[in-house]
Amino acid sequence: CVFFCRGIIQKSREEVASLQQCRPALTPVLAIGGWGEVDVGSHPAAVFGQVGLNVLQISLPADCTEDEVTDEVLKLNEDPKVHGLVLHLPTALLSGRVLNSISPEKDVQGVTDVNLGKLVRGDLEDSFAPPIARVVMELLEQHGLLAEGKTALILGNSGALEVALQCLIQRRGMLVLTSGWKVASLQKQVIIAPQEVMCTTIQPLPASHTPPLFILLVILVRSDGPVTHGGATPRVGSVDSLAAALRMQNVVRSACRWLRQQRYRPWRLRSLTLQPLSPVPSDIEISRSQSPKAIELLAREVGLLPDEIEAHGKTKAKVRLSLLDRLKEQPDGKYVLVAGITPTPLGEGKSTVTVGLAQALTAHLKLNSFACLRQPSQGPTFGVKGGAAGGGYAQVIPMEEFNLHLTGDIHAITAANNLVAAAIDARVLHEATQSDKALYGRLVPTVNGLRKFSPIQTARLRKLGIDKTEPGALTPEEIRSFVRLDIDPSGITWQRVVDTNDRFLRKITIGQAQFDIAVASEVMAILALTDGLRDMKERFSRMVVGSSRTGRPVTAQDLGVSGALAILMKDAIKPTLMQTLEGTPVFVHAGPFANIAHGNSSVLADKLALKLVGEEGFVVTEAGFGADIGMEKFFNIKCRTSGLRPNVVVLVATVRALKMHGGGPKNLQLVADGCSNLRKQIEIAQLFGVPVVVAVNVFRTDTEAEIDLVCRIARDSGASDAVACYHWSRGGRGCVELARAVRKAAQQPNHFRFLYDLQMPIVEKIRTIAQKVYGADDVEVSQEAQAKIDNYNEQGFGNLPICMAKTHLSLSHLPDWKGVPTGFLLPIRDVRASIGAGFIYPLVGTMSTMPGLPTRPCFYDMDLDPDTEQIAGLF
Amino acid sequence: CVFFCRGIIQKSREEVASLQQCRPALTPVLAIGGWGEVDVGSHPAAVFGQVGLNVLQISLPADCTEDEVTDEVLKLNEDPKVHGLVLHLPTALLSGRVLNSISPEKDVQGVTDVNLGKLVRGDLEDSFAPPIARVVMELLEQHGLLAEGKTALILGNSGALEVALQCLIQRRGMLVLTSGWKVASLQKQVIIAPQEVMCTTIQPLPASHTPPLFILLVILVRSDGPVTHGGATPRVGSVDSLAAALRMQNVVRSACRWLRQQRYRPWRLRSLTLQPLSPVPSDIEISRSQSPKAIELLAREVGLLPDEIEAHGKTKAKVRLSLLDRLKEQPDGKYVLVAGITPTPLGEGKSTVTVGLAQALTAHLKLNSFACLRQPSQGPTFGVKGGAAGGGYAQVIPMEEFNLHLTGDIHAITAANNLVAAAIDARVLHEATQSDKALYGRLVPTVNGLRKFSPIQTARLRKLGIDKTEPGALTPEEIRSFVRLDIDPSGITWQRVVDTNDRFLRKITIGQAQFDIAVASEVMAILALTDGLRDMKERFSRMVVGSSRTGRPVTAQDLGVSGALAILMKDAIKPTLMQTLEGTPVFVHAGPFANIAHGNSSVLADKLALKLVGEEGFVVTEAGFGADIGMEKFFNIKCRTSGLRPNVVVLVATVRALKMHGGGPKNLQLVADGCSNLRKQIEIAQLFGVPVVVAVNVFRTDTEAEIDLVCRIARDSGASDAVACYHWSRGGRGCVELARAVRKAAQQPNHFRFLYDLQMPIVEKIRTIAQKVYGADDVEVSQEAQAKIDNYNEQGFGNLPICMAKTHLSLSHLPDWKGVPTGFLLPIRDVRASIGAGFIYPLVGTMSTMPGLPTRPCFYDMDLDPDTEQIAGLF
Repeated sequence: CVFFCRGIIQKSREEVASLQQCRPALTPVLAIGGWGEVDVGSHPAAVFGQVGLNVLQISLPADCTEDEVTDEVLKLNEDPKVHGLVLHLPTALLSGRVLNSISPEKDVQGVTDVNLGKLVRGDLEDSFAPPIARVVMELLEQHGLLAEGKTALILGNSGALEVALQCLIQRRGMLVLTSGWKVASLQKQVIIAPQEVMCTTIQPLPASHTPPLFILLVILVRSDGPVTHGGATPRVGSVDSLAAALRMQNVVRSACRWLRQQRYRPWRLRSLTLQPLSPVPSDIEISRSQSPKAIELLAREVGLLPDEIEAHGKTKAKVRLSLLDRLKEQPDGKYVLVAGITPTPLGEGKSTVTVGLAQALTAHLKLNSFACLRQPSQGPTFGVKGGAAGGGYAQVIPMEEFNLHLTGDIHAITAANNLVAAAIDARVLHEATQSDKALYGRLVPTVNGLRKFSPIQTARLRKLGIDKTEPGALTPEEIRSFVRLDIDPSGITWQRVVDTNDRFLRKITIGQAQFDIAVASEVMAILALTDGLRDMKERFSRMVVGSSRTGRPVTAQDLGVSGALAILMKDAIKPTLMQTLEGTPVFVHAGPFANIAHGNSSVLADKLALKLVGEEGFVVTEAGFGADIGMEKFFNIKCRTSGLRPNVVVLVATVRALKMHGGGPKNLQLVADGCSNLRKQIEIAQLFGVPVVVAVNVFRTDTEAEIDLVCRIARDSGASDAVACYHWSRGGRGCVELARAVRKAAQQPNHFRFLYDLQMPIVEKIRTIAQKVYGADDVEVSQEAQAKIDNYNEQGFGNLPICMAKTHLSLSHLPDWKGVPTGFLLPIRDVRASIGAGFIYPLVGTMSTMPGLPTRPCFYDMDLDPDTEQIAGLF
Repeated sequence: CVFFCRGIIQKSREEVASLQQCRPALTPVLAIGGWGEVDVGSHPAAVFGQVGLNVLQISLPADCTEDEVTDEVLKLNEDPKVHGLVLHLPTALLSGRVLNSISPEKDVQGVTDVNLGKLVRGDLEDSFAPPIARVVMELLEQHGLLAEGKTALILGNSGALEVALQCLIQRRGMLVLTSGWKVASLQKQVIIAPQEVMCTTIQPLPASHTPPLFILLVILVRSDGPVTHGGATPRVGSVDSLAAALRMQNVVRSACRWLRQQRYRPWRLRSLTLQPLSPVPSDIEISRSQSPKAIELLAREVGLLPDEIEAHGKTKAKVRLSLLDRLKEQPDGKYVLVAGITPTPLGEGKSTVTVGLAQALTAHLKLNSFACLRQPSQGPTFGVKGGAAGGGYAQVIPMEEFNLHLTGDIHAITAANNLVAAAIDARVLHEATQSDKALYGRLVPTVNGLRKFSPIQTARLRKLGIDKTEPGALTPEEIRSFVRLDIDPSGITWQRVVDTNDRFLRKITIGQAQFDIAVASEVMAILALTDGLRDMKERFSRMVVGSSRTGRPVTAQDLGVSGALAILMKDAIKPTLMQTLEGTPVFVHAGPFANIAHGNSSVLADKLALKLVGEEGFVVTEAGFGADIGMEKFFNIKCRTSGLRPNVVVLVATVRALKMHGGGPKNLQLVADGCSNLRKQIEIAQLFGVPVVVAVNVFRTDTEAEIDLVCRIARDSGASDAVACYHWSRGGRGCVELARAVRKAAQQPNHFRFLYDLQMPIVEKIRTIAQKVYGADDVEVSQEAQAKIDNYNEQGFGNLPICMAKTHLSLSHLPDWKGVPTGFLLPIRDVRASIGAGFIYPLVGTMSTMPGLPTRPCFYDMDLDPDTEQIAGLF
């Protein structure tokens, strides 16, 4: 027995060692909750240490209630560092409610109803049997007493232990007698037959009743806890140490299981069945006809722990960034960018391709995949028709949740952005109306007799080169430079925002600022580019809101508002998990427009998704509008910031748009002519050294000849492959060819490179984009723009990447110029800088940062049924 | 056996009848999932009907997968109308995963691990045993075979049924032999002893092996499902019908249990322990030091069903309005209003009293109670110090969630409000620049060859008296009146809003409109006053945004935007559940200010809470600022709208404020003088016929003499009681005296009445409030105000209640006039109307609807630790 015990310890040690080869930081932990100094069986902490196990002792107060014990158990259940959980408490406290609050996965004592039920059902693989029962089995085994046809008598209270024993023994083909304990009736029972085995969980049998051929195991359940003693026949060793060893083994098994869940594996994801109708119903009807999975279930399917998500209703959940740390050893999946040709104003279906491709990969090819999409602005939602959740049978559901408030991130951005604006104007007013002394008195007030700088004020002092911490010690000059930001009202570059298409807010003048649409806010750009809370906070501090009269940049930190911004954005930084129509996972996060901003969903969502899909998986992310703007910014800004490298570009084209580029709707030659735009966009992608797959998004009206022509031209122009896609009308099944082509292209070697070096002068960087991407002869920089550029160079912002604000309707700056424009000068009207987001922002031609509403906004069709709560008319 | 079977049916019928006495609409439902036409045992639907049970047959497709079955089970689990759930499917589909997806509470077949575990553990009260096992027991009982000391042999596969049987038999003090089935070894086992009982779950025993004295029960588990057949000895009746009857009994038991959970009962709520420190730490430190319960747990504790909540993270959940329907038979709890005396600018602690009182009632007196609070505006949060979640040891946690975005309701209001504003200005622009024909063409466009009115346009046509449905049929005059709202730009009364203190937005001019703070929006007032989705949508339609040039009111419905508003607000209408520092429940919903709006949390939150606490419980709700404004509007507007009647008013006073009213901080006489204000506010409450309890919110600096004096004066002035409260420093324990006083006052007779009749002329209603509540001699109505009043009368809005916009710092219109002002005329500068919210809105003296930021806004202290994610400096 001692030998057997050593064997178990040795085996556990080996398993822990092999665990740690995969995950060096992992140490299995057994949590033991009890009163004061807890008895950990006969194995002191040192032995646990030898095996490589840690013991976490939770001391509960001696007068603790059931509720408090339950509370502690629930916390340990949620703690991913704990793999096993044992309670050493008086039986009075160990009610069914308390024991069953232990998560069955961590119930290494096998005390929960679920583990017992599994044992009864024979599901041994997935459950934990009570270690004591296993000890008994082991001892019987050693003495050769387990054999088919033998008989065992179990005396006891018919509790969990007895039932477990009975199941284990009976599974060996033996006859089992069970009985409560009464000496009066025992005589008869013992006489029944020459039982070879007898187990009692109560007390030693009187000697007179002990048949000579018995092995008698006496398992005493001590009154103060489930710790047990063995004995009664000399051949039986210490049950205690063996039980503790087996419990240790259970902890190691639990840790192995946990690690297995962490590592890459094809998800066992239940996809939702599609039954596409023809003609294809409206987006909202399709969305409503599908029942989404509970978001907690989807989260579990893709390997998220319960503690890593924050549900928002039944169909959305925020995902915590702690996941990045947990999976940091996990290799990333393949990174696929969906971009497009120069679109018509109606869009060419990049979002539907993104969603359809993910549906095809996961629901049909059974490959782990995530789609990463941007959150739509409410401006277009209530203005011009067309949702951003995809459409037809390739969309994110419930689409109304996606298209409306989602989890409130854009609202948080609006609140943060406008707090900065209010802070600027309030500061200008207060500086204009108060003396240095009055300002200083109000900014650094005496509270309860104490006067001190807040941390954000200390940061400003340091920036000013003032090294004092005592408010009384500042000289009048120092006070003056501390209290006066001296903002030049004509130099304020910060705008207010609303998330509504509100034309009238373009024109108003508040101080010198105007209103933009919320998604154009620098706060949005930062959300999309940041890699975590610390970085986001630092970027907020660096945001430049204007200049002082002496030309120095004034930042959000100078205004004292950057901490408040981080607080307002602390939840928005977590990507939102949703699902496609086929039940595959989607992240929705951030939503900058690609014409007036950098047009890509968040770095964080992509990073989380790349870890979750694992090395064999795919993350499909989308860049706004044509490859000339969305994709160019994806590579030069987003990938540069994130350090991520794309494996494949999917370029979406439609026959409709190619005809537009060719000059008209009527014949095949015009399609061929329009393919010039497609060819050019393929070339742009190749500038960056990434393989391109062309996806032709097929419309009902397209002919086979047209589609074949486009695919042929695309392949001739250097695309790895070109395939027709039918996801809109058929879901993932209609996109399987594309999924196969993408999988193949992802295996090709890829030679990713940036288009320009950050050290180049600002104008040179702009010129490179204009010439190599847009095909311009040169740029034409206005005086105003040049002055700003000079100023940014002076202020030390010359080494940032470029985010062009250009129309998406042409490769040039003129929306009506289709195909592949050549021989033009690109006019740079103005230049702005988003220092926190980290880019220089040239305005090309005439671009408005606030859209307007049309005569018949699409809200006319929207309605809500107050009884069914169903939405009508939302696309 | 047949007799026994009838007995069970009879008993079940009686139980159902008695269920239905409490809840006439309740019919217990058994859901049976299977293929095609499902066999419901030997009881056809008619028999179920006799008992009063309904059977819901769920037909699954013949090729359904495990996933699809699970999906169906999960839906039935969540359906509160289903009380029992049985699967009739091939064994291949009935894996442990599928069976265990059945909620144990609905598992009337006893097939889940949890029910089996409970049975083994002996927890018979709270579990369901397999009906077949109970049939066997019943048969054994009838034949007198269950007696201590007898022996039973169970032959079978050691599955759930065998284990259940064994537990049940053994519990009668019998010896049980269990064995797998093998004829070879059977001989020996049968010989072991003269077993009186033998059960087999496999097949009939060969006749040669049947001992003469046995009762042999043969329970055949058919290969296509758990349906069973009995037989094999002539004495055994139909096992089938008995099992079905017992299953029926289980369904009835489940329904009884469900109803018990519905009915009033003292909650078994685990309160969180407080260990108050001295001196009292900052609010955020106190909040952070307490671990809130998971919100799902709290929801369950107060009787919410899983399907009735939508979690938002771990500590907030929206509660669905379907609850109102489920509990409509439940009598309401007691309704307690917390109001105050005329406050200092720092507030006198009404929110802390509201929270502290709820903590005392539930955590200390063990009475069900809810606190209902308003959601704070971010304006004050980032402007001047002071949270709205309560404070000290009487607050809502986590307070940062409460004080920031919460669940986004105010953001939704902002979006809805500003969509209306953008729609107004866009419409004015488009009407000014387009012909009737062009407007009509755009408003009623031809889509896919079809031209039709949207429902919202049909509603407008009806309002115009045009009864046509065919767009082509309108005459040019009808087209003109349809397309032209002809809004008078100088008559637009709708303002844009932001939820930021932004002084500069007061002054700008956009068309003729300005910016208000979001909580002043009519959308907010509607949210606070509505009783459901239908009513909210109707109120949105009625909102008047301005006048046409001919003086007609123009509504949100005329703009075509009311459906979109309902969509934007469909989630905001659900109150948010949170918890106090002691783990008692809180609703947070809506947040109109009491000076510039009606100042009360939502009707819906109060109604839900009144149902949840049940008839012995208490709902404590708060009205903003002094009793002269918040309470007056609570009675005359909120209670009039909701139909709810308050039982007690708690009037909060502080020695600090009373000294201010008395004229200075220094002596006892000044406190006595200041009590004039307290006396006046008690009188105001008595105008409405409701008992008053005065709560003196004690500050560290108050003397015992001061407190005694205030309590004595309060009682002399007609208060039912007056007690000192120490909730801020001690939590609920410091507020127990108040809770007792409130409980006593709630038992007094109460003679609630409104202050004025709605049929009175508008000016008379204003005068009544001015004279009876504020103590003015009369009102002085400006010409502008009188013209508006005349206009509202003409438009048919004369019968609405009055919502005075008046300073909260004095009973008069002059903030500096403390104590009890007399001998003044109340100036009515202007009058507005919130037709959707349903009140007329006089502006008294000078009131701004947009606050500004101070020199040192409190955001200077705010910071977020990027590692711990902890917030600093938020109060």
